[in-house]
Amino acid sequence: MTDIAVTLADKRGTLPAEDKLGFGKIFTDHMFVMDYVTGQGWHNARIIPYGDFDISPAAMVLHYGQAIFEGMKAFRTGDNRVVTYRPVDHLKRFNNSADILSIPQMDVDLLHAGLKQLIALDKEWVPKSLGTSLYIRPFVVSVDPYVGVKVADEYKLFIILSPVGAYYASGFKPVKIKVEEHFVRAVKGGLGEAKTPANYAASLKAAEVAKEEGYTQVLWLDALEQKYIEEVGTMNIFFKIGGEIITPELNGSILNGITRRSVLEVAKDWGMKVSERRISIDEVYQAHAEGRLQEVFGSGTAAVISPVGELSWKGRKIVINNNEIGETSQKLFDYITSIQQGRVADKFGWVDEVTKL
Amino acid sequence: MTDIAVTLADKRGTLPAEDKLGFGKIFTDHMFVMDYVTGQGWHNARIIPYGDFDISPAAMVLHYGQAIFEGMKAFRTGDNRVVTYRPVDHLKRFNNSADILSIPQMDVDLLHAGLKQLIALDKEWVPKSLGTSLYIRPFVVSVDPYVGVKVADEYKLFIILSPVGAYYASGFKPVKIKVEEHFVRAVKGGLGEAKTPANYAASLKAAEVAKEEGYTQVLWLDALEQKYIEEVGTMNIFFKIGGEIITPELNGSILNGITRRSVLEVAKDWGMKVSERRISIDEVYQAHAEGRLQEVFGSGTAAVISPVGELSWKGRKIVINNNEIGETSQKLFDYITSIQQGRVADKFGWVDEVTKL
Repeated sequence: MTDIAVTLADKRGTLPAEDKLGFGKIFTDHMFVMDYVTGQGWHNARIIPYGDFDISPAAMVLHYGQAIFEGMKAFRTGDNRVVTYRPVDHLKRFNNSADILSIPQMDVDLLHAGLKQLIALDKEWVPKSLGTSLYIRPFVVSVDPYVGVKVADEYKLFIILSPVGAYYASGFKPVKIKVEEHFVRAVKGGLGEAKTPANYAASLKAAEVAKEEGYTQVLWLDALEQKYIEEVGTMNIFFKIGGEIITPELNGSILNGITRRSVLEVAKDWGMKVSERRISIDEVYQAHAEGRLQEVFGSGTAAVISPVGELSWKGRKIVINNNEIGETSQKLFDYITSIQQGRVADKFGWVDEVTKL
Repeated sequence: MTDIAVTLADKRGTLPAEDKLGFGKIFTDHMFVMDYVTGQGWHNARIIPYGDFDISPAAMVLHYGQAIFEGMKAFRTGDNRVVTYRPVDHLKRFNNSADILSIPQMDVDLLHAGLKQLIALDKEWVPKSLGTSLYIRPFVVSVDPYVGVKVADEYKLFIILSPVGAYYASGFKPVKIKVEEHFVRAVKGGLGEAKTPANYAASLKAAEVAKEEGYTQVLWLDALEQKYIEEVGTMNIFFKIGGEIITPELNGSILNGITRRSVLEVAKDWGMKVSERRISIDEVYQAHAEGRLQEVFGSGTAAVISPVGELSWKGRKIVINNNEIGETSQKLFDYITSIQQGRVADKFGWVDEVTKL
């Protein structure tokens, strides 16, 4: 195992009031950094004070977007331990994204150890209120100062930490989602399965238009026929139809969500009928017309579960479950967040202890 | 017109030997920079010494890829003037890319003036040998320190300059191109028409595989049917079939190439039959089988014209024009590069004088 050199920050910051955290704007005192150069491999794993870094205006990531990231969370439990949620699953997916973007594979054990050491060092930044957490953002960017399209020879890996407030600050509430019919996020043979900046860049225009129309997010359909449901961009999507939980199967253009996996495993464990299969937007509207569409909800690291109260497709709006939180959405949210924050036993082995406080 | 503040570099560098320039690795003494903040608009246009800049590890471009760029060239003419090629067309396309990526529009006149002032300041860096040029790279990146998906509120615009060697250092030679059948670069409703990092990130894996198989680049087919020809990623593509020049029509997933436009305008001016239309890979192979496929060539800022000597599609290889440079490819290359370097009259008004030396 590589040694991780530590340079401590001169001054420690303080966690702001936990109801003022918001999302992704406040960062902790330190960050984990590692370099890659062809021929040398990944090297110089270190923890240093959080702060700006020098980048060349010719750095490849600024021009050609060869980059990947992950998003996961650490929580403070009731008995004052700090735990992370499925960190190794996230780091394995990080390597899968690396493969898709032609970025060199990373040592999952080293990253896992670095992550734990970093969080332990900045443990005072882990908030404790219900629904709050420490958001963990590992990412890799290509930094060769070279203005030409190629696979890079130099990369920088970072792990930065951000204490985040409760996603549902004003309560766990259903959202309105627009089914996108013009723009496309990803296509088979493209980058859709990777957590890479390109997929998010491709979602901005559609999200902007949807927001102007009063929707929180867009639901993407497949690029080829604009018929089959894919995902929400920041979330995977689930439908409860006639008692069955259905989510689109992984097809190369959908993100392999870790919370998606958790939902599938929990629902199966509860004895529910669960399907990963192709599902068309027609089928969803048809089920609604027949009174069989019971719930729609998204799953993702940020929100965990996000109930959907309204869908709009080609101007046709449907209200789901009377715009109220569905029974399964609520149960999944309560159960998964309880595992994350140590309020119920972790029978799946998802929680990884970082430190005691 | 905004004033452009100038901070001169303490020390000037020197243009290396012109046969050692390569592409995109050497940069001049200065760069143009401008900032954007929501509410303030674009401001603080300035020319400063070329060099690294500070960036937050949370800067949005590193995570969500909201960024655009352009690529154009300046040349030293035989009578020692420095000229740029179609700069306003490039800057208008820059704004079109900005629109697709939800980046605020820029003042083309200001950028044009800034570009000229920057090149004039660094005019000693414009090489003079045949085929060399000063490559100009304007780009915009989103820099809000915010880890969340949204349209950014803070951007930085740069123009950097790189003296580049002759693209065909070892002579103007046909290349081998693989017709891609697995990966996809862009799709209707996506970002394909924009010059944005996402499109290049999406091309890396396919290019890597093609290179291992001995091909220079890949030719992309449409994402929906994998049937119609799109572009080469760094070039648009042309076919000469039975005397007619054919290139895929702009459809939203193909880059609106400036050299593509030049080729169309020149060929029309020469009285050739020119078509922008949908063309399938089947049609190309059929034309080859019937002996009517006379030439294939790419067009782009870097290479200007790149003759294609071999195509490979699903393992079926065809050799074009006996792997020799076609008559039209050669004539277009000679004529366009002659206009660029001031060796023939610029009847199209494409050349813009920057300064005399």
